[in-house]
Amino acid sequence: MDIGLVGLGKMGNNMRQRLRNGGHTVVGYDRNPDVSDVDSLQAMVAALPSPKVVWVMVPAGDPTRQTVAELGDLLGEGDLVVDGGNSKYTDDEANAELLSAKGVGFVDCGVSGGVWGLDNGYALMCGGPDAEVAKVQPAFDALKPEGESGFVHAGKKAGAGHFAKMVHNGIEYAMMQAYAEGWELLEATDLVDDVPATFDSWRSGTVIRSWLLDLLVNALEDDTHLEKLSGYADDSGEGRWTVQAAIDHAVPMNVIAASLFARFTSRQEDSPAMKAIAAMRNQFGGHAVHTEPPAGGDAHGSLG
Amino acid sequence: MDIGLVGLGKMGNNMRQRLRNGGHTVVGYDRNPDVSDVDSLQAMVAALPSPKVVWVMVPAGDPTRQTVAELGDLLGEGDLVVDGGNSKYTDDEANAELLSAKGVGFVDCGVSGGVWGLDNGYALMCGGPDAEVAKVQPAFDALKPEGESGFVHAGKKAGAGHFAKMVHNGIEYAMMQAYAEGWELLEATDLVDDVPATFDSWRSGTVIRSWLLDLLVNALEDDTHLEKLSGYADDSGEGRWTVQAAIDHAVPMNVIAASLFARFTSRQEDSPAMKAIAAMRNQFGGHAVHTEPPAGGDAHGSLG
Amino acid sequence: MDIGLVGLGKMGNNMRQRLRNGGHTVVGYDRNPDVSDVDSLQAMVAALPSPKVVWVMVPAGDPTRQTVAELGDLLGEGDLVVDGGNSKYTDDEANAELLSAKGVGFVDCGVSGGVWGLDNGYALMCGGPDAEVAKVQPAFDALKPEGESGFVHAGKKAGAGHFAKMVHNGIEYAMMQAYAEGWELLEATDLVDDVPATFDSWRSGTVIRSWLLDLLVNALEDDTHLEKLSGYADDSGEGRWTVQAAIDHAVPMNVIAASLFARFTSRQEDSPAMKAIAAMRNQFGGHAVHTEPPAGGDAHGSLG
Amino acid sequence: MDIGLVGLGKMGNNMRQRLRNGGHTVVGYDRNPDVSDVDSLQAMVAALPSPKVVWVMVPAGDPTRQTVAELGDLLGEGDLVVDGGNSKYTDDEANAELLSAKGVGFVDCGVSGGVWGLDNGYALMCGGPDAEVAKVQPAFDALKPEGESGFVHAGKKAGAGHFAKMVHNGIEYAMMQAYAEGWELLEATDLVDDVPATFDSWRSGTVIRSWLLDLLVNALEDDTHLEKLSGYADDSGEGRWTVQAAIDHAVPMNVIAASLFARFTSRQEDSPAMKAIAAMRNQFGGHAVHTEPPAGGDAHGSLG
Repeated sequence: MDIGLVGLGKMGNNMRQRLRNGGHTVVGYDRNPDVSDVDSLQAMVAALPSPKVVWVMVPAGDPTRQTVAELGDLLGEGDLVVDGGNSKYTDDEANAELLSAKGVGFVDCGVSGGVWGLDNGYALMCGGPDAEVAKVQPAFDALKPEGESGFVHAGKKAGAGHFAKMVHNGIEYAMMQAYAEGWELLEATDLVDDVPATFDSWRSGTVIRSWLLDLLVNALEDDTHLEKLSGYADDSGEGRWTVQAAIDHAVPMNVIAASLFARFTSRQEDSPAMKAIAAMRNQFGGHAVHTEPPAGGDAHGSLG
Repeated sequence: MDIGLVGLGKMGNNMRQRLRNGGHTVVGYDRNPDVSDVDSLQAMVAALPSPKVVWVMVPAGDPTRQTVAELGDLLGEGDLVVDGGNSKYTDDEANAELLSAKGVGFVDCGVSGGVWGLDNGYALMCGGPDAEVAKVQPAFDALKPEGESGFVHAGKKAGAGHFAKMVHNGIEYAMMQAYAEGWELLEATDLVDDVPATFDSWRSGTVIRSWLLDLLVNALEDDTHLEKLSGYADDSGEGRWTVQAAIDHAVPMNVIAASLFARFTSRQEDSPAMKAIAAMRNQFGGHAVHTEPPAGGDAHGSLG
Repeated sequence: MDIGLVGLGKMGNNMRQRLRNGGHTVVGYDRNPDVSDVDSLQAMVAALPSPKVVWVMVPAGDPTRQTVAELGDLLGEGDLVVDGGNSKYTDDEANAELLSAKGVGFVDCGVSGGVWGLDNGYALMCGGPDAEVAKVQPAFDALKPEGESGFVHAGKKAGAGHFAKMVHNGIEYAMMQAYAEGWELLEATDLVDDVPATFDSWRSGTVIRSWLLDLLVNALEDDTHLEKLSGYADDSGEGRWTVQAAIDHAVPMNVIAASLFARFTSRQEDSPAMKAIAAMRNQFGGHAVHTEPPAGGDAHGSLG
Repeated sequence: MDIGLVGLGKMGNNMRQRLRNGGHTVVGYDRNPDVSDVDSLQAMVAALPSPKVVWVMVPAGDPTRQTVAELGDLLGEGDLVVDGGNSKYTDDEANAELLSAKGVGFVDCGVSGGVWGLDNGYALMCGGPDAEVAKVQPAFDALKPEGESGFVHAGKKAGAGHFAKMVHNGIEYAMMQAYAEGWELLEATDLVDDVPATFDSWRSGTVIRSWLLDLLVNALEDDTHLEKLSGYADDSGEGRWTVQAAIDHAVPMNVIAASLFARFTSRQEDSPAMKAIAAMRNQFGGHAVHTEPPAGGDAHGSLG
């Protein structure tokens, strides 16, 4: 099929390549002329046969909203916009409505795959009406991994795909934290001499074998005690949205929430909350300065 | 090699089979004469050539301690006992010392595999001196899955193997909870129409693909909304020991601990803690009985 | 001062009384004619001298928004609306703007006090410009408890008062959960014979003495093991908003979030997440049906 | 009454003073001759009339165990030892048995009060047989705060007092964390201009008023943003024991556990767990180095 692709960063660029490898004709547009196939969004749209399908792969939020709005002006009845970025699921309904007013269809699609996607395929979770999804199905088929899994039409409403991808990322946070906590405990004790070998052994026959485990084993091969790294982790919006959606729906989510909070903490130079703890402890016990006689000495009573 | 195997329940029975499939000579003993190869522990020991190797596969705690003590009386210089059960790592040192006094070696081995182990192999994590591990290596090689992974000599101290297995189980708790929380959120909302298909799609190309995911997809195939199950989960001791070990070593472990607590909660008919919450709320707000005029009505101020 | 008061439910009714006890002239309006001083909002506004001050005490969300909009049509330059309900802080900015367009001022005020407020005073946290707060200060002074504490002009922006009250409620959730968890542990063990007496003893000399502790002691006097209560706890919106605000600002909030999630869990007849856990356990171990030979029996290996 | 007091550190010294203020005759012994009333434990015992009562106030663990053992050699039938230190409740049974073999009674007593105890009294939670508690009741009455609360005979078994005190400290951890998280959120946003005034206002009329709140308000008076403190908090053993006891009894304890883990985290220069998170993120997305074209740029897909 013919498809327009807006946004040719690391991710979009690889997706263009995988689509072309799959035999599709891609007209890519990016502000950066070094990677763009055309000079403008208008030129991209003009180059597509009708009904036109345009895949948007730009940052979530304002950039996506703006691109969708511009495409709404350029496209017409029967055309289709796919938002393949990391948009919040609540953005999709607004985008779908805006386009719908002009007869343009909308499909949202969460994409997983990172740097591995070009070779191995991208996992795709999309949302939208059957007829709209059908228009872009050939591109989905080229982008997805070979085999039965890796693609789902999660729901007919706008946002279903991004919602599914969001939950995927929430699960991912907690799985990563699970391995991380286990690793920290093994490192903190001296019973297990060879922690990397232990993780490596888990790749076969165990309940916890997974692709994330494979990645961690790779990392430990290069850097046994991870001394080259600092314990700092960004979070994409999707972890936050997952917990906020859980709260909206009264779903208890202790584990994913704790994984998210661990990332927040990792980025603090000093914890304000723990300053408040220290302040209270100082008030009731003079904790910061307690110096005691050696033995036969002191048992302080009220400490916490 | 020749090996004695004490404990022929579901797990031990399958392991005997896999060892025999691997060409080893197993003398199995169990209290249950229907499955036992010999009439007594003495008979089992007598049937083994020296140096004798006996694998103990009985429940952790008193049964294992008792079996090890009996073997200490029956075995001698150069013989070896392997504890392949789910013993707490702190038990291993005592067992090793008891046997050491009689010249008998000791290796502890955590075993993962369950009902899949017979066909696919068991993941093995062992601890003990190199020379002792070497004595039982042929059995390890037969029990483990084919390929490079699935076996580790985690450390030279008694307990290293069970400690590694314990941490494995702690990680497992949190990974399961991660999928479970994600599933609950998808079920709680109406954006995603086909939750099982969504989970199935994640098996390829995503960051969260794993064996546990495969299992959950299998379960959802049979029972789309898991209506045949109740939300009740036992816990083996290993989850508890993991968190207690973390506390002993001042390792923060929010995610694994929360996964353990979720299992505790799942087994409570009613939560005592939440009764206390209800009691306090009743005291300050008359929450249990608040009946308000319809609209233009009431804004209660201090509720929590 | 003269003040209009919209909403005469349990809370509003008591506040009218406390304002009158403080020497103020209150014109109360409620849809329910049995408690209302006037027949309509118009009549209430007409009865007030200029500049008119109206305190809104109706449920958060649509009822408050609608009342504020109606007052915007009835009031004019120099008048003031106070929202004393449990509005979300993000609602206040919109209400302030809507009124500002008509020259009407706006102050938001979080109110704590419940059934104890009439006699002991209400804790008040307000937000808005100094000049607007000054107009209603006499009413604040009458409503607040005697003494120095109990009132704060938290910030000049609309929403500052409700935000402060929201955080207050978040803290409250976690304090209640702290006592509740401690109580559950004491009840779960048999070392402490007299749990109510233990809690009562903590009311003096300890680090954890508080008004909430007093309430819990009261409750335990009537019902030693809280057998008359079920472990079910609603949550007002404020706990949810607190955690969502924390996520928006990347503030780790494990304790308040866990307290909120405990309330969600308390209202579930069966936990969907734990069904998923049970489903996975069934898949890898046949956990639901494991029946083992008594001793010398089985050590299952891979359980989680 | 006459009482021996072993351990005259900051806490023991103040307790001696309060006992004397209450009219009791205290013979204090400490290794440090500057504060000791006598030259040796023997001299202290010799100075007491029979039946002799000795209060031990030395650090928990070995120092307490050793002191109890020495007293067992010096005391006899009908005498009594009180352990008022921070011993783990499981130590008490052993100490009670050791003394019981010599006819010496044992009472364990958790003491709360810190630097405030001398003037305001110490909260006391004790365990032991009625007859033994009666022997030391006059000292308890002098040490406790005036009024009805502040003392409890929590249970007849050895350890009941220390267990009650331990749970008290667990509750304390979570209450402190509750205020701390709320404070961090208020500081992180710009809606509330005067955070100290907000906390101060909560001291009256609110659900969350408490002595800990008073302490935090005091601290904020001196140091508005707590800039003089670092976010570092030690933990006494009692928080750890509380969570470990909860795990032993299958009591869910998310909030107290999270408070404990927050203290562990506060003492880490860098988080090992978060290094593992960073390692996995690097593997699947090259997160550490992602540099993207400005707009029209990139939507990365699989990030977590």
